[in-house]
Amino acid sequence: MDVISVIRTKRDRGELSDEQIDWVIDAYTHGAVADEQMSALAMAILLNGMNRREIARWTAAMIASGERMDFSSLSRPTADKHSTGGVGDKITLPLAPLVAACGAAVPQLSGRGLGHTGGTLDKLESIPGWRALLSNEEMLDVLNGAGSVICAAGDGLAPADKKLYALRDVTGTVEAIPLIASSIMSKKIAEGTGSLVLDVKVGSGAFMKTLDDARELASTMVGLGTDHGVRTVALLTDMSTPLGLTAGNALEVRESVEVLAGGGPADVVDLTLALAREMLDAAGLSDADPAKALADGSAMDVWRRMISAQGGDPDAALPEARETHTVTVPSSGVLTRLDAYDIGVAAWRLGAGRARKEDPVQAGAGVVLHAKPGDSVVAGRPLLTLHTDTPERFEYALEALTSTYDVSPTGTDFSPRPTILDRIS
Amino acid sequence: MDVISVIRTKRDRGELSDEQIDWVIDAYTHGAVADEQMSALAMAILLNGMNRREIARWTAAMIASGERMDFSSLSRPTADKHSTGGVGDKITLPLAPLVAACGAAVPQLSGRGLGHTGGTLDKLESIPGWRALLSNEEMLDVLNGAGSVICAAGDGLAPADKKLYALRDVTGTVEAIPLIASSIMSKKIAEGTGSLVLDVKVGSGAFMKTLDDARELASTMVGLGTDHGVRTVALLTDMSTPLGLTAGNALEVRESVEVLAGGGPADVVDLTLALAREMLDAAGLSDADPAKALADGSAMDVWRRMISAQGGDPDAALPEARETHTVTVPSSGVLTRLDAYDIGVAAWRLGAGRARKEDPVQAGAGVVLHAKPGDSVVAGRPLLTLHTDTPERFEYALEALTSTYDVSPTGTDFSPRPTILDRIS
Repeated sequence: MDVISVIRTKRDRGELSDEQIDWVIDAYTHGAVADEQMSALAMAILLNGMNRREIARWTAAMIASGERMDFSSLSRPTADKHSTGGVGDKITLPLAPLVAACGAAVPQLSGRGLGHTGGTLDKLESIPGWRALLSNEEMLDVLNGAGSVICAAGDGLAPADKKLYALRDVTGTVEAIPLIASSIMSKKIAEGTGSLVLDVKVGSGAFMKTLDDARELASTMVGLGTDHGVRTVALLTDMSTPLGLTAGNALEVRESVEVLAGGGPADVVDLTLALAREMLDAAGLSDADPAKALADGSAMDVWRRMISAQGGDPDAALPEARETHTVTVPSSGVLTRLDAYDIGVAAWRLGAGRARKEDPVQAGAGVVLHAKPGDSVVAGRPLLTLHTDTPERFEYALEALTSTYDVSPTGTDFSPRPTILDRIS
Repeated sequence: MDVISVIRTKRDRGELSDEQIDWVIDAYTHGAVADEQMSALAMAILLNGMNRREIARWTAAMIASGERMDFSSLSRPTADKHSTGGVGDKITLPLAPLVAACGAAVPQLSGRGLGHTGGTLDKLESIPGWRALLSNEEMLDVLNGAGSVICAAGDGLAPADKKLYALRDVTGTVEAIPLIASSIMSKKIAEGTGSLVLDVKVGSGAFMKTLDDARELASTMVGLGTDHGVRTVALLTDMSTPLGLTAGNALEVRESVEVLAGGGPADVVDLTLALAREMLDAAGLSDADPAKALADGSAMDVWRRMISAQGGDPDAALPEARETHTVTVPSSGVLTRLDAYDIGVAAWRLGAGRARKEDPVQAGAGVVLHAKPGDSVVAGRPLLTLHTDTPERFEYALEALTSTYDVSPTGTDFSPRPTILDRIS
C-alpha cells in the first residue's frame, strides 16, 4: 500500500477500498503519511466526493485510531446532542441539565470556538473556577453525581480526527460533507452514547448555507450513527439570524441561566425543548416532560450540581466587559433581517472568539441584540450593544456590521422563518 | 492576501488573479505558505484546471522566484530542446553536439531520472570523470569552447519550481497539464535561450498516454514560450516502444556515440535529425546540414570537446554490468509490439533508475533490445538482454515483462507507427 496510489484513486474519481481507507488513516495518525499528502487527498475528497460505504469506513477507521468510552455501567440511558455550530448557539448549556433532570445521562463532549462561531467550552469557562478538562474517571463521576457533564474530549478519542481537523482548517478543505460528517460522528460514536440528536444549522451563520447541503450532511450523519448502532435523529434549524439575544461567552451563560430559571428568549426556549424531546425519545424516555422540568426548577438544580462538580461557582458574578458601544436603530419600522454571520464576526472581532487555536478569548466580549426580526423598532433607540475589554476593537467590529440589518417602514414584506426547518431520522 | 482564500478560489472553480498567483508562489518559495497548503492548491489546480492567463502568470511567477541566465554575450544564436521524458530517450546526447556543429550554441540544462524514465545526467555520469554540476561561469566557458554544454540546472534557477516539483512528486499531483507546462517552461525561459524545440512524448512509456493530452500540453507550452519571446515549436513523437535498442545509462551513451559516428538505430538517427532541423530553423540557421555534420565527424568532434571540458574522458571504457540474463523469442514470426513502459520499469528495477531522489544508479544496468516492432524474430533466439550488477534483481525485473511483447506468425496485423506524430508551432 502506498499513499500516492490512494491519492490517485480518489483524484481519478475512483472508489477507495476498505484496505486503502484503513491504511491511510492509520498511517496518517502515526506520521507515515505526511500532512502534504493528506491535504492533497482531502482536496480530492472535497472535489470528487465519497460514497456511503467509503464515508462509513473512513469514520470507522477514525474511531479505531483511538480509545472508545463505555457508559454501560450507568444505570440511566445516555443521550447526546451535537450542533454543527452557529451564532448565539448556547443551547447545550440549558439542554444538558434539562435532559438529565428528565432521567437521561448526558455526557456532552464539546469544543472551543474557531472563526465566527462560539464554542461551548469557551462560554462555560467564563464561570469562575469551572474546568473543561476532566479525566475519564472525573467525567464519569460528574455524570453519576449530577446527571450531565459538559467537558473537552480527551486526547485519546479519535486522534486521527484531531489531526485531520487541524489540517483541514489551514488547507481550505473544511467544507467537504464526507469529512464534516465523519469528523463529527467518529467522536460521537467513540464517546459511546446510546442515542444522538443532531442540530444541523442552515443559513448565513452556519457552515451549511442551503437547505439541500444541510439535508445531505444530516442524512449522511444519521446513516453513520444508525450503521454504528446509535439511535440518531437530526433537526435542521434556522441560522439566518442569531439564536436568542446574545452572542459572546459570559453573555450567553447569563441567557442560558435565564432559560433554566423559566424565562429567556422564546426561540432559545423552543429549540431547547424541541431538542430535549428528541433526546428523551431517542433514549426511550418519551414520557418525560421537559417543560415541567424547566418550570419547577429541577433542570436548574442539575445545572448547579454540574457546574459545582466541575469546580465552578454557580452563584459567582459573571465577568462583564469594561467598555460598551451602542448601535442605534436608523429608522422606525419593523426589523426584517438581522444577519447571523455578521453578528458572529462582530462578536469574534470584539474578543469573544479566536483567530488561532492558541489565542485567549475575552469572557465578557460579544454582542447583545435589542430586537429580533419581526420586532417593531424606533429610530434612535438601541439595536445592538457591543461589549469588549479592548475598545480599539470597536471600529473593526463595526466594519462587519455595515449591511447586517434591514428595517422596513411597515413590515409588510417580513416573512417569519420557523426555527425548525426539517427533521431527518 | 491569505492562502486559504487562494485555495478556496481554485477549489470553487474560480480564476486566480495575478496578485493571488504572484503572492502564493512567492510565499511558498519563502516558506510562508506550507507544503500542506500548496499540495491542496495543486490538487485543486489538477482537478479544476487553469486558463491560459493563469498558466502564463504562474510561469512568470516561478521565473521571478530566481535568477535568469543571459547568453546575449555569445556570438552564436542559442537553441535548446526539451523532452517530456521517455524510455531509451538518449536523443539529447547526440543532438546537442550535432546542433552546435551546425553553428548554434546549445545550453542544455538537464535532469535526473525518476521512476521509469531515464535522466540525461545519469546517463552522462557513466562516462568516467564527467561532471554534471557546473557554476554559471563554467557553463559559459564550456559553451564558448565546445559549442554545447549539458549540465544540471543551478539552485538559483526557478527555485519555486524545484520546491513545487518535489512536492508534486509525493502528493499525486504530477499529472496536471498546467503544472507540467509551467514547470518545464519556467526553467527553459529562465535559462535564457532564444529558441526552444519541445519533444512531447506520447504513448505507454510517456506521461501523456493520448495524442489529445499531448497536444494540449504542447500547445500550452508553445503559447508560454511565444508569450515570453522564445521561438518555440513542439514535435509530438511516439513513445509506445523504446527509442533505439537500449534503455540504461552506459548502454545509451554507447548507442549515442554510434549515432555520432554515423551509425546507430534508424529511429534514433531520424528523430535526432528531425529535432536538429527544428532547432536550427528556430535559431535562424536553416541552411545548415545536420546529416552532413553526422557523416563528416564534426558532431563527434563537438561531443569529444564537450565531454572533455566537463572532466570526462571520451575514450575511456564505459562501465559494463557484472551479470546478464537473456529473454528469448517465444515463437517465430514478426514482433508486432514491444511496450515502452514495461521496458522502462524493467531497466529501472535492474538498477538504471532510482526509487527516491537520493538513491544511486548503476551505470551498467539496463535492457538491450535485439528486435524492434516490425522485425522478424526466430523462436529461441535472444529478444532482450537484461544487465545488472545485482543479479537478485532479475526476478523483480522479469515480473515487469510478463505481457510486454506480441509476436505474430505472419505479421499481417502489424501497422508501423511513425516516430513523429504531429508538429505544433
